[in-house]
Amino acid sequence: MFLKNAWYVAGWDTEIHADTLLARRLLGEDLVLFRGENGLFVALEDRCCHRLAPLSKGQREGNNVRCMYHGLVFDGSGRCVEVPGQDRIPERLCVRSYPVVERDHLIWVWMGRPELATPDTIHDTHWHDCPGWQAERGGYIHYESNVQLIADNLLDFSHLGFVHNRSIGTRKQGNVRPDVDFADESVAVRFTTLDSPPPPFVRELSTLPESVDRFNYYVWHIRGNYFVQDSVVAPVGGGYDSTDPTTVKLHTFIALTPRDEHTTHYFWSTAHNEFCSSAQELTSKLTVQVARAFQEDREIIEAQQRSINAAPDAPMGAIAADGTLLRVRRMLDVMLGREAQESPASAVQPGVPA
Amino acid sequence: MFLKNAWYVAGWDTEIHADTLLARRLLGEDLVLFRGENGLFVALEDRCCHRLAPLSKGQREGNNVRCMYHGLVFDGSGRCVEVPGQDRIPERLCVRSYPVVERDHLIWVWMGRPELATPDTIHDTHWHDCPGWQAERGGYIHYESNVQLIADNLLDFSHLGFVHNRSIGTRKQGNVRPDVDFADESVAVRFTTLDSPPPPFVRELSTLPESVDRFNYYVWHIRGNYFVQDSVVAPVGGGYDSTDPTTVKLHTFIALTPRDEHTTHYFWSTAHNEFCSSAQELTSKLTVQVARAFQEDREIIEAQQRSINAAPDAPMGAIAADGTLLRVRRMLDVMLGREAQESPASAVQPGVPA
Amino acid sequence: MFLKNAWYVAGWDTEIHADTLLARRLLGEDLVLFRGENGLFVALEDRCCHRLAPLSKGQREGNNVRCMYHGLVFDGSGRCVEVPGQDRIPERLCVRSYPVVERDHLIWVWMGRPELATPDTIHDTHWHDCPGWQAERGGYIHYESNVQLIADNLLDFSHLGFVHNRSIGTRKQGNVRPDVDFADESVAVRFTTLDSPPPPFVRELSTLPESVDRFNYYVWHIRGNYFVQDSVVAPVGGGYDSTDPTTVKLHTFIALTPRDEHTTHYFWSTAHNEFCSSAQELTSKLTVQVARAFQEDREIIEAQQRSINAAPDAPMGAIAADGTLLRVRRMLDVMLGREAQESPASAVQPGVPA
Repeated sequence: MFLKNAWYVAGWDTEIHADTLLARRLLGEDLVLFRGENGLFVALEDRCCHRLAPLSKGQREGNNVRCMYHGLVFDGSGRCVEVPGQDRIPERLCVRSYPVVERDHLIWVWMGRPELATPDTIHDTHWHDCPGWQAERGGYIHYESNVQLIADNLLDFSHLGFVHNRSIGTRKQGNVRPDVDFADESVAVRFTTLDSPPPPFVRELSTLPESVDRFNYYVWHIRGNYFVQDSVVAPVGGGYDSTDPTTVKLHTFIALTPRDEHTTHYFWSTAHNEFCSSAQELTSKLTVQVARAFQEDREIIEAQQRSINAAPDAPMGAIAADGTLLRVRRMLDVMLGREAQESPASAVQPGVPA
Repeated sequence: MFLKNAWYVAGWDTEIHADTLLARRLLGEDLVLFRGENGLFVALEDRCCHRLAPLSKGQREGNNVRCMYHGLVFDGSGRCVEVPGQDRIPERLCVRSYPVVERDHLIWVWMGRPELATPDTIHDTHWHDCPGWQAERGGYIHYESNVQLIADNLLDFSHLGFVHNRSIGTRKQGNVRPDVDFADESVAVRFTTLDSPPPPFVRELSTLPESVDRFNYYVWHIRGNYFVQDSVVAPVGGGYDSTDPTTVKLHTFIALTPRDEHTTHYFWSTAHNEFCSSAQELTSKLTVQVARAFQEDREIIEAQQRSINAAPDAPMGAIAADGTLLRVRRMLDVMLGREAQESPASAVQPGVPA
Repeated sequence: MFLKNAWYVAGWDTEIHADTLLARRLLGEDLVLFRGENGLFVALEDRCCHRLAPLSKGQREGNNVRCMYHGLVFDGSGRCVEVPGQDRIPERLCVRSYPVVERDHLIWVWMGRPELATPDTIHDTHWHDCPGWQAERGGYIHYESNVQLIADNLLDFSHLGFVHNRSIGTRKQGNVRPDVDFADESVAVRFTTLDSPPPPFVRELSTLPESVDRFNYYVWHIRGNYFVQDSVVAPVGGGYDSTDPTTVKLHTFIALTPRDEHTTHYFWSTAHNEFCSSAQELTSKLTVQVARAFQEDREIIEAQQRSINAAPDAPMGAIAADGTLLRVRRMLDVMLGREAQESPASAVQPGVPA
């Protein structure tokens, strides 16, 4: 059901302090995440191979973790390095270890075959921490829904006209037809709303006139389930590259990591250019507005999920706007099929360290 | 499991105000109920045929409802009349519509084949709003039990001697043998308790003497699951038609609408003649007493349901008093069998407007 | 899954006052426990054989219990002795009765074939109420876990070094190798920790020196799932029979009664000799310490159970310390197999009084 050979966002670096053992379920698997004394992150199966107690109830010791039921110690590769009262430690005593990388304040974990993990393919989100951009990181929403319903939502911006018509959207956006370009494992969408009133949040935060052009250009990455958007609100005629000083430019990052079949982690951040002087205050205000809009999404999507649960066989009737998301689902199916052929289920062995 | 071709009470008219979209599950199906600008009630499947979001999270527009996910609009017949950004609307875009009638402040919905819906068979409950009677309408209890256990309760009044011996019943009623008349799809019960102390609630509310005759005459309607009772508490010897001014006369209406297999809607009202001067105050006091008794029923029936859930195969041992309810169950089985023959499951098509 | 032919602790005598009808689930069966006017305890199936309402929602009348739905009365043998409004009572109207014995303030119930119940095999716990010992009785913990995980915990005291290293254990105990003697249906463990610091709780309560010998001698009884421990903390060299007046001697009793497959009743008591003058105060303090340690167990075991539920097929990897608990599981399997042969399921008939 989920692509395994992918880097998934597992958390924000700020979630893990000195001794933290962070328990997190990803793709239906229970992991414990921590940072060793050497500063490196570790991601292990959160289940002691002895009596299956969670390692996240244990304690960090140096670069290792000790299960606090019977005292077994595991290193970052998942190998058991101590059994109290026992000299010889059999090799089979180990837990699964996952490749893990911290990049731009995000913790990415590779959920598939370790030998395929390639840290250089991790997406660049440098605006989380660079000059010229003000970023609010650390956004998190727990979703009581399958990941696909949320991806569908991001892939059809016509919902801005209805779900968000009191926050970041305007009714006119319900009728916009986007430009869409498909690549191998991603889709680029250009959603343009010309000469129309600014959305409520822009009206509140900026000095833009009563009619604006709006550009939502985003890419959805199927492998890893993340969304990267450049959006611009400019005076009419200024275009996507508008240099008018009142122009609002935003980067939005959203990573959807399946918690399991029924629930999803939604990690997000926003960054903006310095379109007004009191940037810090603006960042907070903007984040409040975006966070509200994301909650609007969550409400309708969780309601949709409950509705589907109540009638699992109810068919969905396609409309013209569904073209993109339907094609993305077919692309995902192809990628899943290819992965199943290349990486038979038996290739990933829980309990065998990387 | 449930008769489909029947009018079921779906709610009280007071539950639906100007813009209300009332979500209600009936017989395992999710409906949205609203009143159009034209004053007519509408009952639709509560699941947009596009992406299955609940219509009850949308908004009423005139006589229609708009899904507030992607903006589709449906009229009262369930037909989609608007898809934002799309000119042609295929006929298959529709949701199921249910016949609905408001009568005497109750909203009745027909859950079966629409062509069989006959509003003239809806039960007359004119005392909800007529001279000579004071009524408290709007009673509602959510039951965590199957509908049948509640029907059984109403069909055997010997429980008044035990469940209600501190409210509306007296111990003597535990031994009463009722007169029972069966009709095609209903049963009429005359439960008479002569020359005995009045129940606690009558003692509190009326000036009747310390010994009274009590007549509980009720009809249980199998199709639609409702109960209509005339009850009289009169001075000894006055009889059911007693004209003594201290006589207490009540109408009780209870409609049991299955929410699903496990839960039930219990709608109820009480009305009484003007047996004392301060009628309004009396109505409220009486309603409090009756409501308390209905909660006594709920407590024992929900406990019974939990007990059955814990031991689904435990047999029930019949006693003499069970004759009526056992025969009613057999009548229901016959009616269900007849409906299954006449209306094969395929005859009712979700997603096809009436 | 559970041995039926065994005495299980069902509760403490103090849980049942004059009119109490105590509902308690044991081994997946719902029982009602009460004490008749004659002072004798009664244990019946908590499900009226008429309409399956719980008898525990009824009322005690003399030595009997009346169902407060339709008024049937059952005596201590489970026979129905009254049906309101009906003269003849068929023999089939009865509920199952369980042998029950009160002994040393504990209520023991026999869950298997009544003819095999032998009260003389009930374990002696006289220290609950005898000279020379101060006891705190009445301990109870509800566990959200299968009984076996708790039994495993009690059978491997090496967890004292980790789970309890801030309460009743010391790290050194993680490495102790116990002496173990197996009998037919029990196992005796001698867990000895010589010349080491006293555990935190002893340090707080006694005047023992900074180095002590510690003896945890306990027997686990497979039939009935209970644990009886004599433990001694003595000055170094004093031995298990130390007569030094600072020696701390404790009796601990723990009975694990399966509530069902997923939950467990944990009844416990502690008793101690008079090792200091203010015995009553000490008893309370000691009990607080022990209770805290038992909560430490509950936390790790419930976490372990959740972890197992999340990955039911995850294998457990044995370490050297697991020898005892693995052998006990095999002994239990043999006993279960023998019981299945001797007492086919049909031999215990719910609804047939003993």
